Amino acid sequence: MQRYFINEALALQDEFTLSKADSHHLLKVMRAQIGEKIEVVGSDQRVWLSQLLDNAAPASLKAVQEITKSVELPVEVTIACGISKGDKNEQIIKRGTEMGASHFQFFTARYSVARWNEKKIDRKLQRFEEIAKAAAEQSHRQMIPTVEIISFADLVNSPVQHRMVAYEESAKEGEFANFKRVLSNTASGDALLAVFGPEGGLAPEEIKSFNDANFTLAGLGPRILRAESAPMYVLSAISYQFELQ
Amino acid sequence: MQRYFINEALALQDEFTLSKADSHHLLKVMRAQIGEKIEVVGSDQRVWLSQLLDNAAPASLKAVQEITKSVELPVEVTIACGISKGDKNEQIIKRGTEMGASHFQFFTARYSVARWNEKKIDRKLQRFEEIAKAAAEQSHRQMIPTVEIISFADLVNSPVQHRMVAYEESAKEGEFANFKRVLSNTASGDALLAVFGPEGGLAPEEIKSFNDANFTLAGLGPRILRAESAPMYVLSAISYQFELQ
Repeated sequence: MQRYFINEALALQDEFTLSKADSHHLLKVMRAQIGEKIEVVGSDQRVWLSQLLDNAAPASLKAVQEITKSVELPVEVTIACGISKGDKNEQIIKRGTEMGASHFQFFTARYSVARWNEKKIDRKLQRFEEIAKAAAEQSHRQMIPTVEIISFADLVNSPVQHRMVAYEESAKEGEFANFKRVLSNTASGDALLAVFGPEGGLAPEEIKSFNDANFTLAGLGPRILRAESAPMYVLSAISYQFELQ
Repeated sequence: MQRYFINEALALQDEFTLSKADSHHLLKVMRAQIGEKIEVVGSDQRVWLSQLLDNAAPASLKAVQEITKSVELPVEVTIACGISKGDKNEQIIKRGTEMGASHFQFFTARYSVARWNEKKIDRKLQRFEEIAKAAAEQSHRQMIPTVEIISFADLVNSPVQHRMVAYEESAKEGEFANFKRVLSNTASGDALLAVFGPEGGLAPEEIKSFNDANFTLAGLGPRILRAESAPMYVLSAISYQFELQ
């Protein structure tokens, strides 16, 4: 069933309208008929089965039954990535949303080839937020992950409780215990920040900064993972550790 | 460092040549110079640092030092997928190779939209094998995963020791213990077959066939995963379970 997000909290029998873009999608793309039911997530993450009242734009609906069932990862995961080339950043947002990330942060890493100037950043962020919203709808999330651009200094000083860096050199040296140790110290409800380099990896001085700030450097197994695959590994492992039991 | 696969086993000081395509890649694309070293994996999965002897095609090299270090998943994983549309099948092979799968099998599922006729299958398989080889080189695997098309009957009768189906309906019903149970019964050196539906999922009668054949139906957490993401979840979790410690 189609799912949309709205910016207000809903209660039973509340009538409301969808945004212009979502109305267009529901009425024109999905061709919904009056009386048809869809899922709508309010700003409080409660999910309502809602009935289409009228098929003129904007789509007006009524909340007819609450169907909230938590599908969110029990750990609030921030995926922070060095800016990569091409559509890799978008892939990270798309698949990372599907796999339960709460926040995405992008930073210009020493080895980032792509550079985003001020004008580009606004366009990029808008596009990224649209991708996060669409992926959250498709994967039936209850929240849309946030996306932001962050400076390296702010990233290193991030106040998140559990902080790790996926580090290829650790893996090459056979370090395979740290990621498991981070997760064994993490409890449901905690927040975790995982940092990933761009295609070229993280520079030695960046690794030193993370190390000095007490981030845990962790290898993700003996195979070389692409920049856009490593976040999927981490999110899958967190789900496996916390959700499958 | 660049890595190539060859079809023979090597010993120290052995001289050998690369295939036509790999020679072209090494000499023309990478512009390797005489004396330059690359990594070459023999048919016995041993890895040799090899020196370029001559820069006329085909590239001739000499094995100068063995550098074998196991990077293979300790479980031999077969990823079997209902044929999906577009480039999803190729993505599964590319990322699944990077994440350690040993074999890929594709079957025409009840809800598969794409149909491959005899002529198409040969072309597809050739393309898939090229993708597996390139991904194995890039992720520094010691083996190239096999790719085959399999009938549904052969898949259901597969003699692999541990057999599971990623089943969305299990997840919706809150079944989150079975995948972990499969892995806790799996030991290093075992073989595991994991089956995934196409975009539209598996049909009830397909699920019944797997169930009757004693496959374990397993949910992969509470979020809906795309057809091409679910195999990555399974491979990441297997790596996390068996390789990180």
